[in-house]
Amino acid sequence: MSYIVMNRFQVAEGRESEFEELWRTRESFLDEVDGFEIFHLLRGDDPGEYISHTIWKSKEAFEAWIGSEPFVKAHARAGETPKEIFAGPAKLSQYAVLMTQKKKV
Amino acid sequence: MSYIVMNRFQVAEGRESEFEELWRTRESFLDEVDGFEIFHLLRGDDPGEYISHTIWKSKEAFEAWIGSEPFVKAHARAGETPKEIFAGPAKLSQYAVLMTQKKKV
Repeated sequence: MSYIVMNRFQVAEGRESEFEELWRTRESFLDEVDGFEIFHLLRGDDPGEYISHTIWKSKEAFEAWIGSEPFVKAHARAGETPKEIFAGPAKLSQYAVLMTQKKKV
Repeated sequence: MSYIVMNRFQVAEGRESEFEELWRTRESFLDEVDGFEIFHLLRGDDPGEYISHTIWKSKEAFEAWIGSEPFVKAHARAGETPKEIFAGPAKLSQYAVLMTQKKKV
């Protein structure tokens, strides 16, 4: 059963392009991780609202990644991000995919 | 640019299976809509937290669907849903996909 992990960020006014640039230049090491499927960076309609949105093959695959070396490497730079870029704490949410419906081809 | 639309539901305690059954038995008419890519029903880790999660080819494709007959047909049954099933109003959010990273194959 697929699993979706979202981290919601509230970026401070005027710091949006800096935030986007951090994501564009990061090394995520995700693309070779077992059970990783696809990552999206989303920008909401509300000002400063962003979501890092990752689809995993299963909850187990996500949890295995959390405890792995690629995870630690990918997050090493996070400590260097200036705190003033955010207007509040990030909020992590995890979701089980109950139903899926695809475009007919 | 892909576009993701999420509708967040807070389901009342004890009504979760009824809510899931409504989704399983609905006729969405989505799978033949231009620009529709994939629909997921998500269940969060917090009790009663659900998201209807739809990926579109573009914002324009989503907006065209909103004004179309398949949308009206798909939502005709919504009025029949007992209000007591929810613990609060649904919250619709729309997101532009800024970055995508896929699993290496």
